[in-house]
Amino acid sequence: MKVLVIAAHTDDAQFCMGGTIAKFTHAGHTVRILVAIVPCESIDGVASKKEKKIKWAQCERAAKILGADLEILDLDPYQMWFKRDIVKILDAKTREFSPDVIFTHWDHDSHQDHVAIANATFAVTRRNNISLVMYEQSIHGGVTPYSFKPNLFVDISDVIDIKLESAEVYKSWELEGRQWLKAIEGVAAFRGNQIGIKYAEIFEAVKIAWISGKEVFPPCLFW
Amino acid sequence: MKVLVIAAHTDDAQFCMGGTIAKFTHAGHTVRILVAIVPCESIDGVASKKEKKIKWAQCERAAKILGADLEILDLDPYQMWFKRDIVKILDAKTREFSPDVIFTHWDHDSHQDHVAIANATFAVTRRNNISLVMYEQSIHGGVTPYSFKPNLFVDISDVIDIKLESAEVYKSWELEGRQWLKAIEGVAAFRGNQIGIKYAEIFEAVKIAWISGKEVFPPCLFW
Amino acid sequence: MKVLVIAAHTDDAQFCMGGTIAKFTHAGHTVRILVAIVPCESIDGVASKKEKKIKWAQCERAAKILGADLEILDLDPYQMWFKRDIVKILDAKTREFSPDVIFTHWDHDSHQDHVAIANATFAVTRRNNISLVMYEQSIHGGVTPYSFKPNLFVDISDVIDIKLESAEVYKSWELEGRQWLKAIEGVAAFRGNQIGIKYAEIFEAVKIAWISGKEVFPPCLFW
Amino acid sequence: MKVLVIAAHTDDAQFCMGGTIAKFTHAGHTVRILVAIVPCESIDGVASKKEKKIKWAQCERAAKILGADLEILDLDPYQMWFKRDIVKILDAKTREFSPDVIFTHWDHDSHQDHVAIANATFAVTRRNNISLVMYEQSIHGGVTPYSFKPNLFVDISDVIDIKLESAEVYKSWELEGRQWLKAIEGVAAFRGNQIGIKYAEIFEAVKIAWISGKEVFPPCLFW
Amino acid sequence: MKVLVIAAHTDDAQFCMGGTIAKFTHAGHTVRILVAIVPCESIDGVASKKEKKIKWAQCERAAKILGADLEILDLDPYQMWFKRDIVKILDAKTREFSPDVIFTHWDHDSHQDHVAIANATFAVTRRNNISLVMYEQSIHGGVTPYSFKPNLFVDISDVIDIKLESAEVYKSWELEGRQWLKAIEGVAAFRGNQIGIKYAEIFEAVKIAWISGKEVFPPCLFW
Amino acid sequence: MKVLVIAAHTDDAQFCMGGTIAKFTHAGHTVRILVAIVPCESIDGVASKKEKKIKWAQCERAAKILGADLEILDLDPYQMWFKRDIVKILDAKTREFSPDVIFTHWDHDSHQDHVAIANATFAVTRRNNISLVMYEQSIHGGVTPYSFKPNLFVDISDVIDIKLESAEVYKSWELEGRQWLKAIEGVAAFRGNQIGIKYAEIFEAVKIAWISGKEVFPPCLFW
Repeated sequence: MKVLVIAAHTDDAQFCMGGTIAKFTHAGHTVRILVAIVPCESIDGVASKKEKKIKWAQCERAAKILGADLEILDLDPYQMWFKRDIVKILDAKTREFSPDVIFTHWDHDSHQDHVAIANATFAVTRRNNISLVMYEQSIHGGVTPYSFKPNLFVDISDVIDIKLESAEVYKSWELEGRQWLKAIEGVAAFRGNQIGIKYAEIFEAVKIAWISGKEVFPPCLFW
Repeated sequence: MKVLVIAAHTDDAQFCMGGTIAKFTHAGHTVRILVAIVPCESIDGVASKKEKKIKWAQCERAAKILGADLEILDLDPYQMWFKRDIVKILDAKTREFSPDVIFTHWDHDSHQDHVAIANATFAVTRRNNISLVMYEQSIHGGVTPYSFKPNLFVDISDVIDIKLESAEVYKSWELEGRQWLKAIEGVAAFRGNQIGIKYAEIFEAVKIAWISGKEVFPPCLFW
Repeated sequence: MKVLVIAAHTDDAQFCMGGTIAKFTHAGHTVRILVAIVPCESIDGVASKKEKKIKWAQCERAAKILGADLEILDLDPYQMWFKRDIVKILDAKTREFSPDVIFTHWDHDSHQDHVAIANATFAVTRRNNISLVMYEQSIHGGVTPYSFKPNLFVDISDVIDIKLESAEVYKSWELEGRQWLKAIEGVAAFRGNQIGIKYAEIFEAVKIAWISGKEVFPPCLFW
Repeated sequence: MKVLVIAAHTDDAQFCMGGTIAKFTHAGHTVRILVAIVPCESIDGVASKKEKKIKWAQCERAAKILGADLEILDLDPYQMWFKRDIVKILDAKTREFSPDVIFTHWDHDSHQDHVAIANATFAVTRRNNISLVMYEQSIHGGVTPYSFKPNLFVDISDVIDIKLESAEVYKSWELEGRQWLKAIEGVAAFRGNQIGIKYAEIFEAVKIAWISGKEVFPPCLFW
Repeated sequence: MKVLVIAAHTDDAQFCMGGTIAKFTHAGHTVRILVAIVPCESIDGVASKKEKKIKWAQCERAAKILGADLEILDLDPYQMWFKRDIVKILDAKTREFSPDVIFTHWDHDSHQDHVAIANATFAVTRRNNISLVMYEQSIHGGVTPYSFKPNLFVDISDVIDIKLESAEVYKSWELEGRQWLKAIEGVAAFRGNQIGIKYAEIFEAVKIAWISGKEVFPPCLFW
Repeated sequence: MKVLVIAAHTDDAQFCMGGTIAKFTHAGHTVRILVAIVPCESIDGVASKKEKKIKWAQCERAAKILGADLEILDLDPYQMWFKRDIVKILDAKTREFSPDVIFTHWDHDSHQDHVAIANATFAVTRRNNISLVMYEQSIHGGVTPYSFKPNLFVDISDVIDIKLESAEVYKSWELEGRQWLKAIEGVAAFRGNQIGIKYAEIFEAVKIAWISGKEVFPPCLFW
């Protein structure tokens, strides 16, 4: 099975669904992470080449830990909203990879890039023959007037360490003092507790298409 | 894998998800249909023993066509709302059968019995360790202020004939002249067309729990 | 009565509400179709003048079959999102035509242009003295996290042939092998069956304003 | 055209849609108000025969002012929830009167009787061949976690006096000092202002079925 | 300020908002917990007097730890749904206590009693002059098709120990092996992390009424 | 306490929440109004320097009447949608002022600028440590498919005159003949009536964060 994870920023895939990615790759499936933007602005808005290089390297290291392929699109964050050229880029990448399932952001997240990527992914999957799933908002995500509606719980108890290892890669000045690793574990424990296990990641499935003769999501060798 | 289909009335399982049931049983899984009420009132509200016998027999025949087990609870339709004794009955039946996934009505259907069964099933699955899915409203279902949100499409192209055969069993004075078979096929064709295949049934998954060491829904041998 | 149908692309009006348009024009009402974009990109994204000419001609032919006026705005698809200049264009066209009711796209469609047109139309009708209705997503529309909520069913049984004739005009390489005509008829049959008739088109009315001394939607001579 | 207004209590029809009822009857249409319960408990919960008689008479007087028929079902308020026998009563009354359109309560009102009547009406109209509309919550209605979504605005500027006259009939100890008449006029003025006129009543249409050969709602002679 | 917490079962108040209750009482406000039902059925549905006595005593001890008053209504769990007599009981208790704010269950919880209590509280607060807030679903709450929308975050970092102490009182055979204390702490940590603090409880405010001359919720001496 | 009111246009703050602003400033709190755009296009779309000067002066006068600070950003209305540079501007202004609570537009308003400002404010408050509240749509706001869900009612009975005085400043050719002052008073009366007082303004609180050691919204000296 081929799994495409579309993420706005370098750390989103690991923070939001690193456990599920590890489950996939450990079972022999192919996961490709598509990253749109490499955040490299200081708090004053100055883009830093050095920062970009660091984030880029982190992203590669973290993907490797999860056993996933990685493609970084390096798009302009000042040109990121729900419009045709963003759709076309994701469209081309999707046709090229031909995934059985796509994971994307939640379309009611507080971050403008997450909203843009989610909506563009809705456009990309308009033929409805690829399953589409939204991952939960990252830790430290903004509360908006909307509420994520989880309908898919994935047990990641046996890969929680790998998830945390892949997340730890993103150590940085922004996360300094925000206990992000403990927070990531806390979310997984809370979500796990909801279904009576140790650790889980949650998702909102938008459409799961079980078509005869095609790979069914989830695949048999998932566990 | 063990699949429990909870239905308010004798014909709901076949009309709403007969194709998916056939897919399950053909792949070697166990499906049990739990029917709450045997409708036997004439249009004037008089309950008829003869009518009940007919409906009961139809229900048994239709379950057999799909290869499913059947249990008819024969509850009082005048005592059917979201309350503790209804929950307890479904609770006991669920513990007894121990399903991996439960299918139930949509909780915003127009029919009072469908609403009651759906809500009671939410209570039954409160531990969140059994997957829970709502099937689409039956043909001739009432339009309410709410809208079904399908997130699961099942290809039933190769079992459409079995679905229709199981539905045809329910031929009756109420359906007389309402072209129910053509309508059932029409819905399946419309839903199939949405994902680019011939026939489909659609569902709204409330929660899919993929727990390590437990049967994952959908099962490997689904297709 | 004057009816304005705002559509993102050349075939949307016929596919989504061709029957209702025919009902209006046959009853002597004036219908103007406003088309924003003439799609003319090949699958590789190259805009083709020849393709544009073909689509333009199809659009004119199809409008004629329905007895409707047509204006093609020919806007740039790469500059289509919910922003002031799009609102201003639709505002000017609306003031010029002075419709009693406007039909537009569903604002939760998967296609970026449909979303932009729907939102811009909300802005255009901000005075709330023109009735506003959204037509159902076209066949082959993408499933998003949202669900269309129909609250208006229009019987098109006696004009289904005209609808199909107007849709057939759009025969093209994109629709090749997708059985679009059968799909369009299938949707109409499914929607009709929901209210007990042969064929229907469905809509979500956003606001219907019945103001004394003004034309009431629907008009008396609708049927 | 035949219009059925289903109301839980004696004053709901006048307070919520007295203006629209007057518009209908003045245009020659038949309006029947169906009242479920005659409230007659004192604040201490003691039912008073005298109070019932007063409310009953008020209800008759107010219906007459609007030119509407009236049927009072006088059901037991302690047996009022969404269950089969309530549905059956409304079903029988609806078949008997055979309306073209039904008006009912909003299903997310704070009052248990309003919720029960709304849901039972959804069940009654399950064939979808009768138009169904919910009127706005009465003045002094409880704020719940839900929000009424008006999609139908009716200009009652020329009948506001009749509405207020019919509402004034319900003068009582409960309304004492609550300025209900001024409040009713205030709501109508606010709703009118939303669409640029003097006075309006608003509604949420659940389903409007325009079926060839049947009366279309709204009727031609509405204004 | 007077705070009324309405809870279906003996442990709901402590599990869901024990921290916020402690904050109130520590600041000198009066909190009354109103408990509807004392759960005392074994898994086989047999009511046990001994069990009832244990739960009753636990409830009193836990209220004392939080510094709150307690009233146990001891209603019949087989007669608990959204109907007039439940509303009347809560109505009388509310008038008697005259609270400035009421806390109740979430109306889309999976448990029938929670749904009934929430809806009855909506009816009780229909005058909209008492603030109304819903607390988050308890740990081990069932996932339904709905999603809680928190809009109120209360910092309980300095009273987390008191919350846990009050929750520990409910040690029982049902919670055996379910690590409920760790789960309660986990939820509080997750909610705290969302707003950048250690521990929080979250709520969905239905209506907050700031009326001149009345106690404003939250009160000045809250922190 | 420091209150930041973010508004798309010069008159939004006064029309939507002038009363609440006055309540704040009268109690000694600091209110800053941040205005994004100075509308100065004639109906034909020509920008007028004179018009801009008039609107700018009105805005200053009206802020003074309410006792609030004012900053006008004077952004380009043709570059106003939910994108990074808009977020960055609001982000910088928010960090500079460091408010305890932010008021913004409703994100489902019909106007493109209101939608953009609301969404950008969601991004600005992504850390969830500043309370966030949306004010009701202005008078003459467009009805969209969504419905405002008020959960916060503020009594402005004693400052209604100040609100109206601040609104009257915006007398202009656009409002000519639309009775805007009467409409503003009408809305306040309607909202007040909902909670049993004379005049109120309503809000939808997105998140209220009560964090120990920080100013709690609402502040003690609000009334």
